[in-house]
Amino acid sequence: MSQIIRAFAALEPSSALLVQELRVAELKAEEVEVEVEYCGLCHSDVSMAENEWGFTRYPFVGGHEVVGRIASVGANVKALRVGDRVGIGWTASSCGECQFCLAGDPIFCAKSQGTIVGRHGGFAERVRCHWMWAVKLPGALDPALVGPMFCGGITVFNPFLEFGILPIHRVAVLGIGGLGHLALKFARAWGCEVTAITSNASKSEQLMAMGAHQVLVGDAARGFDMKKAGSFDFILSTINVATAWSSLLQLLAPRGHLVLLGATMEAIPVQAMQLLGGRKAVVGNGTGSPTAMAKMLEFCSRHMIAPTVEQFAMSDINAAIAHLKRGDARYRVVLKNDFA
Amino acid sequence: MSQIIRAFAALEPSSALLVQELRVAELKAEEVEVEVEYCGLCHSDVSMAENEWGFTRYPFVGGHEVVGRIASVGANVKALRVGDRVGIGWTASSCGECQFCLAGDPIFCAKSQGTIVGRHGGFAERVRCHWMWAVKLPGALDPALVGPMFCGGITVFNPFLEFGILPIHRVAVLGIGGLGHLALKFARAWGCEVTAITSNASKSEQLMAMGAHQVLVGDAARGFDMKKAGSFDFILSTINVATAWSSLLQLLAPRGHLVLLGATMEAIPVQAMQLLGGRKAVVGNGTGSPTAMAKMLEFCSRHMIAPTVEQFAMSDINAAIAHLKRGDARYRVVLKNDFA
Repeated sequence: MSQIIRAFAALEPSSALLVQELRVAELKAEEVEVEVEYCGLCHSDVSMAENEWGFTRYPFVGGHEVVGRIASVGANVKALRVGDRVGIGWTASSCGECQFCLAGDPIFCAKSQGTIVGRHGGFAERVRCHWMWAVKLPGALDPALVGPMFCGGITVFNPFLEFGILPIHRVAVLGIGGLGHLALKFARAWGCEVTAITSNASKSEQLMAMGAHQVLVGDAARGFDMKKAGSFDFILSTINVATAWSSLLQLLAPRGHLVLLGATMEAIPVQAMQLLGGRKAVVGNGTGSPTAMAKMLEFCSRHMIAPTVEQFAMSDINAAIAHLKRGDARYRVVLKNDFA
Repeated sequence: MSQIIRAFAALEPSSALLVQELRVAELKAEEVEVEVEYCGLCHSDVSMAENEWGFTRYPFVGGHEVVGRIASVGANVKALRVGDRVGIGWTASSCGECQFCLAGDPIFCAKSQGTIVGRHGGFAERVRCHWMWAVKLPGALDPALVGPMFCGGITVFNPFLEFGILPIHRVAVLGIGGLGHLALKFARAWGCEVTAITSNASKSEQLMAMGAHQVLVGDAARGFDMKKAGSFDFILSTINVATAWSSLLQLLAPRGHLVLLGATMEAIPVQAMQLLGGRKAVVGNGTGSPTAMAKMLEFCSRHMIAPTVEQFAMSDINAAIAHLKRGDARYRVVLKNDFA
């Protein structure tokens, strides 16, 4: 096995990505190495490349929506063999011995490592993770499409499990991009009443086709339609910018949940009075554990759900990032590995 | 039955309370009239008297922690008879026909009326409510003490039901006054690990006696002890002023809930990033439905829980309010009706 991995790396916050040869250590006993076939492009790859969150290490290699085949396995790997097709998402490892790991919630492990946090990610020939975080693909899913499920997908699917969303609930999705379009598809297949909330009315027809029963137009400047006050049991917010939060909270029914899924950096001003009477909740969810990912993939197989993607060659990664940053992605960019 | 009720009323936001004779209409068919024996003094009586929330109508009569005996019943009253001893809390009526009323959640009824919102409350000889909101007292409870259960008590008890608090959970109570001291007693009897968070270290011994296993000192200026980061499954916040919210949220464990129970008017700045990874929640709870109050009273009987109160004659109500406003109440003021 080669100790060199070629990857697209940022050398500093403002740099274009360049092919670098990364020298890697011997594969750890519990790790697998995956030959990347496809890798989704998530907005947090860009946030990390630009050190928006302040903890990026350079050279930085993004990519945490990986699909590929197991190329090598460490001595203590379980459940997987060379040749298995797997996906890897935001998390690459966890300790396996803390209370959260033992309880089946390794997502909360304090020693967990992100695939692109202090490690190199999937914009590369090969990428590594602890075997437990490489989740096997059911055969029915198209490997060219399924990559975005491992970060964007699980981030919007996990709330259905975590917060007990039922088919009798009225679910609104705020912000219809990489995450939001999958949330619409999930909510529709889950049996819910589905509302897309977007600032862009021109998307309406597409959003209805993806599963929305209705489209609500609103944003930070206009606020949201108060005729819909008290209408939603869940609002899944996928935006990562500020909006008219107080107006948005008024759309919730009693016991309604505003579920934050996007990493909005500006503090959200919450009025206690808006939560008290109706016992409303502002909650957050970031990705999910491997067992939740496996459930999601089964659900996608059964309901024929796939992301709506645009494919770029990995060698065109800088163009793909520019496309995403312009807000033009419809709805998720997937890079196809074309390392020779 | 007299059509005149004597009560202590505020005539304008800044006025002392004065005895007024209120002319009342005939008792409605589904209402009961209760002879007030005792009435707790809640901070929201003061907020309402001073029109802090902007919807007070004058003359204003506060008092929504009433204990007394049924004096008259309307033609269609069920379950109660003249002479029954009952309590009345924040809510005086609900429609009985909406989806929330039918589902046993009349607390969410859009047509519900507050005991002191557009009605006159319990700082009076007599007070009225829909029969369903007059909750019978189990015989074991001391009527001189139990009044505060009907607002302060249910506000901190209901979260145990609503948010699924279990005896394995680590519960912290922020702000140990009228609500907080009852939260300590409930949490201890519920079997939880109990922490009191206070700005006033001199209260520590009393708080341990009320049920706290430990006392944490912190406030807006000092923040909270980061050695306790990730320590609590629930923080029940009873304060109605701002604090070091970001520091407070760090005390929550994964899946931890910050439960807002006090009507803090200043917006709470919530960082999405603080909620996402640990799936944390900021939720609110205001009082509870009559069935929850009945469960609370049963629980209090079984565990011998009562508020820690200071009794004033109702004729000393202005002195009692001044005492409360100085922050001197230990821990709830109860007024004894002394109308001749």
